[in-house]
Amino acid sequence: MRLAELSGRSGVSTATIKYYLREGLLPPGRRITATQAEYGEEHLRRLRLVRALIQVGKIPVASAREVLAALEDDTLDHNARLGTAVWALPHGPAPAEDDPATGAARRSADELLRRVGWGCGGDAEAPSPAYGMLVTAITALARLGYPCSVDDLEPYARAMGRLAGTDLDLVERYGGSPDEQVEAAVALTVLYEPVLLSLRRLAEAEESRRRFAGK
Amino acid sequence: MRLAELSGRSGVSTATIKYYLREGLLPPGRRITATQAEYGEEHLRRLRLVRALIQVGKIPVASAREVLAALEDDTLDHNARLGTAVWALPHGPAPAEDDPATGAARRSADELLRRVGWGCGGDAEAPSPAYGMLVTAITALARLGYPCSVDDLEPYARAMGRLAGTDLDLVERYGGSPDEQVEAAVALTVLYEPVLLSLRRLAEAEESRRRFAGK
Repeated sequence: MRLAELSGRSGVSTATIKYYLREGLLPPGRRITATQAEYGEEHLRRLRLVRALIQVGKIPVASAREVLAALEDDTLDHNARLGTAVWALPHGPAPAEDDPATGAARRSADELLRRVGWGCGGDAEAPSPAYGMLVTAITALARLGYPCSVDDLEPYARAMGRLAGTDLDLVERYGGSPDEQVEAAVALTVLYEPVLLSLRRLAEAEESRRRFAGK
Repeated sequence: MRLAELSGRSGVSTATIKYYLREGLLPPGRRITATQAEYGEEHLRRLRLVRALIQVGKIPVASAREVLAALEDDTLDHNARLGTAVWALPHGPAPAEDDPATGAARRSADELLRRVGWGCGGDAEAPSPAYGMLVTAITALARLGYPCSVDDLEPYARAMGRLAGTDLDLVERYGGSPDEQVEAAVALTVLYEPVLLSLRRLAEAEESRRRFAGK
């Protein structure tokens, strides 16, 4: 398809598509004349992913470029490509190693992962960025006067453990080829975050009404 | 306590505290001389909440001021104050009413809330901002090629429903007085978001390893 059709089918303006092409977020089309290029279904898919990252995930262009580069690395096996692409998503500030609360938070995170039996994450040689994000979050809770124990964290981990099966079922449903699965894993990770957070606030409002209505 | 002690105990520099006072994020202290004021435990607590909102939640100063104003509204009953303060948190862009996908997303959200039996949220007269956030998220999924059914969403709602009990137990544990409970509800809503999202990514990595390892 030509640029105009890619724009029509994706709902992204031609100016924005050209910007994504210049920034390397979208691979170039197959050049057919000096001024025209031909785009395929893979461009349409990639464009959707770019919009999920940038418009919904509010991820900076440079980080989005890193995520997309990780998708392309075909020296890795499928699981490693899935992991690498999700790892390239922004994870907020890394733990402050000079903060004494960070050591305690790290021990809580390690104990939590041990309890739920997750082997990933706290690997000392290549800690997952999501593990760093968890340690930063536990440190912030303690520093701001809401220290949490491993017992407090466990229900959250168990809930996310149960949902991970649902998350991966969706990845397999939307991803026909391994390439599409890696794209779906990244897009669904980002796109379901506001789903989860909005449902949490609605659930809290409901629970609060039950406990405190009229008080 | 004087400004220096408030700074020492909170870990917030005196310059930042003065900035928060000027911006109205922190109520003024009790003036004891022309140049000195006395601060209480309520200032220390409020300072922790401001840091949770601004440093962890990345909430703009103007929005933080709105959240804090909602905390003070003592014309409301306790449950309404809890709700109003959490409602004042930023919820991302409202649904685009001119997008045909928004109507479909709204019907999915309504059906979902009916299934899980939550009365809040979709009230036509005063829809909760979290409801708008959910509709926006469902619309984005559809527009970006990952349409979701009510069946797809239900496990996420059930999981958040179960966790809301845990969330509110924490609010009651940390909040002695009703004022402290409202502060704790806002702080814990914001501070547990990165906990949840990081645990979700760790859980997905674990599930992915189980399904795809070596593939």
